[in-house]
Amino acid sequence: MILSHRLEVATRGKGLYEITGQIAGWLSRNPVASGLLTVFVQHTSASLLVQENADPDVVSDLKAFFDRLVVEDNRLYRHTSEGPDDMPSHIRAALTLTQISIPVEDGRMALGTWQGVYLFEHRAVPHRRRVLLHLIEG
Amino acid sequence: MILSHRLEVATRGKGLYEITGQIAGWLSRNPVASGLLTVFVQHTSASLLVQENADPDVVSDLKAFFDRLVVEDNRLYRHTSEGPDDMPSHIRAALTLTQISIPVEDGRMALGTWQGVYLFEHRAVPHRRRVLLHLIEG
Amino acid sequence: MILSHRLEVATRGKGLYEITGQIAGWLSRNPVASGLLTVFVQHTSASLLVQENADPDVVSDLKAFFDRLVVEDNRLYRHTSEGPDDMPSHIRAALTLTQISIPVEDGRMALGTWQGVYLFEHRAVPHRRRVLLHLIEG
Repeated sequence: MILSHRLEVATRGKGLYEITGQIAGWLSRNPVASGLLTVFVQHTSASLLVQENADPDVVSDLKAFFDRLVVEDNRLYRHTSEGPDDMPSHIRAALTLTQISIPVEDGRMALGTWQGVYLFEHRAVPHRRRVLLHLIEG
Repeated sequence: MILSHRLEVATRGKGLYEITGQIAGWLSRNPVASGLLTVFVQHTSASLLVQENADPDVVSDLKAFFDRLVVEDNRLYRHTSEGPDDMPSHIRAALTLTQISIPVEDGRMALGTWQGVYLFEHRAVPHRRRVLLHLIEG
Repeated sequence: MILSHRLEVATRGKGLYEITGQIAGWLSRNPVASGLLTVFVQHTSASLLVQENADPDVVSDLKAFFDRLVVEDNRLYRHTSEGPDDMPSHIRAALTLTQISIPVEDGRMALGTWQGVYLFEHRAVPHRRRVLLHLIEG
């Protein structure tokens, strides 16, 4: 009825990392025709987005926008113990997604033609991020 | 157990289009007492919001805010092939929602008194947008 | 199969109010091993966030960021009937979450170590906010 899996995503600093293939790979190893897939990131300084995966400029423009919008200037924040990217990481995560649920049809995510699922790493140094995959069978 | 439906929403350029009635109409044609409804937009330059549907000024102020926040100036972006509203559309979608799940009780969405579900079109020209409705019966 | 509950959260003006304990308390009174918990706020001027609950400076910095980003200046808005915090409340809600779904494992939310669930009150005066808890058993 419910299947779940823990994905580990190794990041190399700030940016968007596509995880569509890893999610699709897990789905393909489970013979589930239809259901609801929930992707949940267990962190508050990394987040999720569904965005265009055709032109790589889209994700680099997205990263640059969030860099401009949420300034890395410790005078603006109290929570600064882990450096200038610490509090901006939490804010950028708050502006994007902790969870995304995607309908599954014929064993596959019902994504649009250009949609990919991304982990958005907000910290400057590499991290290992835990992403839960949770599938309710229909 | 799982019911699904594809909604097509014809937009006439940038702005918020209420789809509460269309979703409620589909629900009413299915005798499901309780469950979880997931609304998923299959695009990366249109998004979803649940917002006040009492005063139409709310959605026009929302549109104006996102216009100011995400500037249409191609010098800021690399992904500019489809015009000045191209990359800002992806960013505005990233700041709002690709998916919203709403509890269903007594055959209806358990929305608050003033809540409506909106498709947020970010592109300047009219589009036909695909919105998946996905209902898990309880 | 589906369990639901209405949580009432009394707020004392703008800020983030942690509701992790109240949600966990409700879960612990229901013998459900695994499932999907959906938290849904029935308002458009209050919202939800999953954020760090270790250092209280994080939520005060988050509140300050949204105060700076969405200016309380009625000259910017048409929807001003309830005061300078009226339209900014809707915008801040639109930038955060109306709903969050969290996998439940071994009877508990599968949150990361530092993750807490917050109601984000955007209005200046105290409110009683309704939050739906909706659990699909697996």
